[in-house]
Amino acid sequence: MFLDIVINTIDEYGMIKKDDCITAALSGGADSVCLLLILKELSDKYSFTLDALHINHCIRGKESDRDEEFCRNLCKKYDIPLTVIRTDVPAAAAESKKSLEETARDIRYQAFEKHAGDKGKIATAHTVSDNAETVILNMARGTGLKGLCGIPPVRDNIIRPLLDVTRQHIEDYLKSINQGFVTDSTNLSDDYTRNRIRHKIIPELLKINEGFYKTFSSEIKILKEENSFIAQCAEDAYRKCRNGSGVISGLDKYPDAVKKRIISMFFIENNLPFDYNKICSVCSLAEKNGKINIAKGVFITGKNGSISIIGESERIPELETPLKIGRNYIFKNKVLIAEKNKKDGLLIDLDKVCGTIILRNRRYGDKIKLSGRDFTSSVKKLLNENIPSEKRPFIHYLSDDMGLIYVENIGVADRVKVTGESNRILSVKTEDVI
Amino acid sequence: MFLDIVINTIDEYGMIKKDDCITAALSGGADSVCLLLILKELSDKYSFTLDALHINHCIRGKESDRDEEFCRNLCKKYDIPLTVIRTDVPAAAAESKKSLEETARDIRYQAFEKHAGDKGKIATAHTVSDNAETVILNMARGTGLKGLCGIPPVRDNIIRPLLDVTRQHIEDYLKSINQGFVTDSTNLSDDYTRNRIRHKIIPELLKINEGFYKTFSSEIKILKEENSFIAQCAEDAYRKCRNGSGVISGLDKYPDAVKKRIISMFFIENNLPFDYNKICSVCSLAEKNGKINIAKGVFITGKNGSISIIGESERIPELETPLKIGRNYIFKNKVLIAEKNKKDGLLIDLDKVCGTIILRNRRYGDKIKLSGRDFTSSVKKLLNENIPSEKRPFIHYLSDDMGLIYVENIGVADRVKVTGESNRILSVKTEDVI
Repeated sequence: MFLDIVINTIDEYGMIKKDDCITAALSGGADSVCLLLILKELSDKYSFTLDALHINHCIRGKESDRDEEFCRNLCKKYDIPLTVIRTDVPAAAAESKKSLEETARDIRYQAFEKHAGDKGKIATAHTVSDNAETVILNMARGTGLKGLCGIPPVRDNIIRPLLDVTRQHIEDYLKSINQGFVTDSTNLSDDYTRNRIRHKIIPELLKINEGFYKTFSSEIKILKEENSFIAQCAEDAYRKCRNGSGVISGLDKYPDAVKKRIISMFFIENNLPFDYNKICSVCSLAEKNGKINIAKGVFITGKNGSISIIGESERIPELETPLKIGRNYIFKNKVLIAEKNKKDGLLIDLDKVCGTIILRNRRYGDKIKLSGRDFTSSVKKLLNENIPSEKRPFIHYLSDDMGLIYVENIGVADRVKVTGESNRILSVKTEDVI
Repeated sequence: MFLDIVINTIDEYGMIKKDDCITAALSGGADSVCLLLILKELSDKYSFTLDALHINHCIRGKESDRDEEFCRNLCKKYDIPLTVIRTDVPAAAAESKKSLEETARDIRYQAFEKHAGDKGKIATAHTVSDNAETVILNMARGTGLKGLCGIPPVRDNIIRPLLDVTRQHIEDYLKSINQGFVTDSTNLSDDYTRNRIRHKIIPELLKINEGFYKTFSSEIKILKEENSFIAQCAEDAYRKCRNGSGVISGLDKYPDAVKKRIISMFFIENNLPFDYNKICSVCSLAEKNGKINIAKGVFITGKNGSISIIGESERIPELETPLKIGRNYIFKNKVLIAEKNKKDGLLIDLDKVCGTIILRNRRYGDKIKLSGRDFTSSVKKLLNENIPSEKRPFIHYLSDDMGLIYVENIGVADRVKVTGESNRILSVKTEDVI
């Protein structure tokens, strides 16, 4: 029964293919122990190889070491290869000026990516209980339809096979096979809010509807489909409305829901601060002639279904220049240095480049298939995951006639990567200008 | 500040026009007392006339009478005309076999409609607090995006000017003008669940985000727009896909979100029971050749993007026949009697009819502009509000070349209504056949 739910989730989202290399993220808690054992049970059925990855965040002293020890014994018992990574999260947090929680999350996902390498997949143990908590958290804080869709079952190479099972399912399963787990005593700030939702709100929802989790799972699937439908409509519309940098035309042709998503994409592309009220103001501005102040020194004017940005102080203009060998500037504070036949920096095989290389800043909808990956990533997502927000406007991009070939701090496109046979090699590095 | 929020809501949804006749639904509780006084304060600004309607449900004995008395005194104090309607809800509930709560609600909305008459509007005192409770209730019970949109600010002639203010706003306002109110001691079944949400869940959400209500108000507006966008896309698609009664073709052209809404409309039109899992089964059925059992004796087959119903036992076939004078049958258990120049039954001015009158059962998307109303209503909504569900499949409809002119138990279209100048009059009545 329990296993059926997991199989159903795996099949519904095509999470696992034959010969996949799957790494279970293992903390030692009930959810991740269950995930590991379930995957072990399913590895023959789906023909995948399984290993585990434990990250010792060194946040909780002896307790962290106890958890690591527990994971080592567990993997030994079930004969599953285990990799342990120890990182000093408190030190990293102090350096990055982020919270412990945020730093731990960043380090965890970076370690996942590094460990999974080119073609591996990482399985995390998120459950429907986590998902409901996330959705309620988003509802409380306000994040629109997208936030109500919760945790994605698959994102890039991360899969979440337990996303339709409850914590109760997991505890029952572990009890039935007499398998223990460790309990985490941390109470990080986000967990504090989550505990409130877990222990106060969810039990009330279960009293109103004892089948709440099942209802919720179905609900979330509908919302996800509806959200991606609107998102797709809005993306298509944005492409049609976008009239060069800082101008949107023909907004009046679209219904309000699409119009507002277009306007929020416009704000994002132009790096302007926004909230729901600003979106509404700009939306009504497009219908009449007028002008509103949107940020320091930046105005948006509206006329006959078009909106335009006036003032440059905070928005990002479109910058581009053909790449030359040597020092290239599109930002005041940074330089991109391109050199031939050097081995430091990121390397590009010049014989694989199509046409002219252009150095530019970000464009809406930028995508890249990074070296060694078999999928295309949205640059927006890569930036959000890897680059602090204040640095995002100042990232260098290189494109050729076929699209992006390089994103600073992110990597090089698979199709121009250097191999043993490469002859003409371009090395790219960036430096801050003081 | 508080008044500004109300004015903003009224203006945003165009709730009030010059010379409107607005009736405040007055229970005597804090919300409705506040509504009445706010409307009194705004009646000059918007130039509308105001009266109040109190319904004594006779559920709570002396307490009901105390509330009636309170409302009489309040309206006298502020010089607002008051109508009091006394109905014996417990007796009506016993007769209709519905719950007290449901019966009270039905009677209340019927009384609103009757009192407001042709052109009046009814204002109810629902607040953002009620709205959040409704949305959480729907979330717990599972109702998709539509349920997450909550209480509509305007529905037909009902307006809800307090939909963006909180209970706290209301209590503060009444305190500031030193105005009392009555407290309702009832604890009907639905209220019991609502109390759970009000006293347990909402306070936790407010601890997570003290601006929860404000966030929620904006959130709900986005969801409403997005829902109506998808609903519109799905309605348009349904019209294109509908291939006679019981057949849908070309489903494969649409994205999943639209496909699933089309399938749910198909279930509704054909009066078939459904839930999310059935919708998903039918959705995947359309992509392959196959057949599933959907209800007793009813199957749905799928082939190349089409789905069809096989078996008639529970679904409603399309029935129609040109109307003749005398007894007309499209159902086994009922007869529609059409007579000329009689005065009983509902009356139609034959000189205003265009072309042939057809007697038929319901069609998807049926709409009618009823006599004396200045807006078009969806027949589905009229049925849901006025006809018990088991009787809905057996309602008679008359249409002419321009559309519906009569719906049994609902009324006659405005454009064929009888006036002092009418000559040829058709009388229509229905009888059960035993």
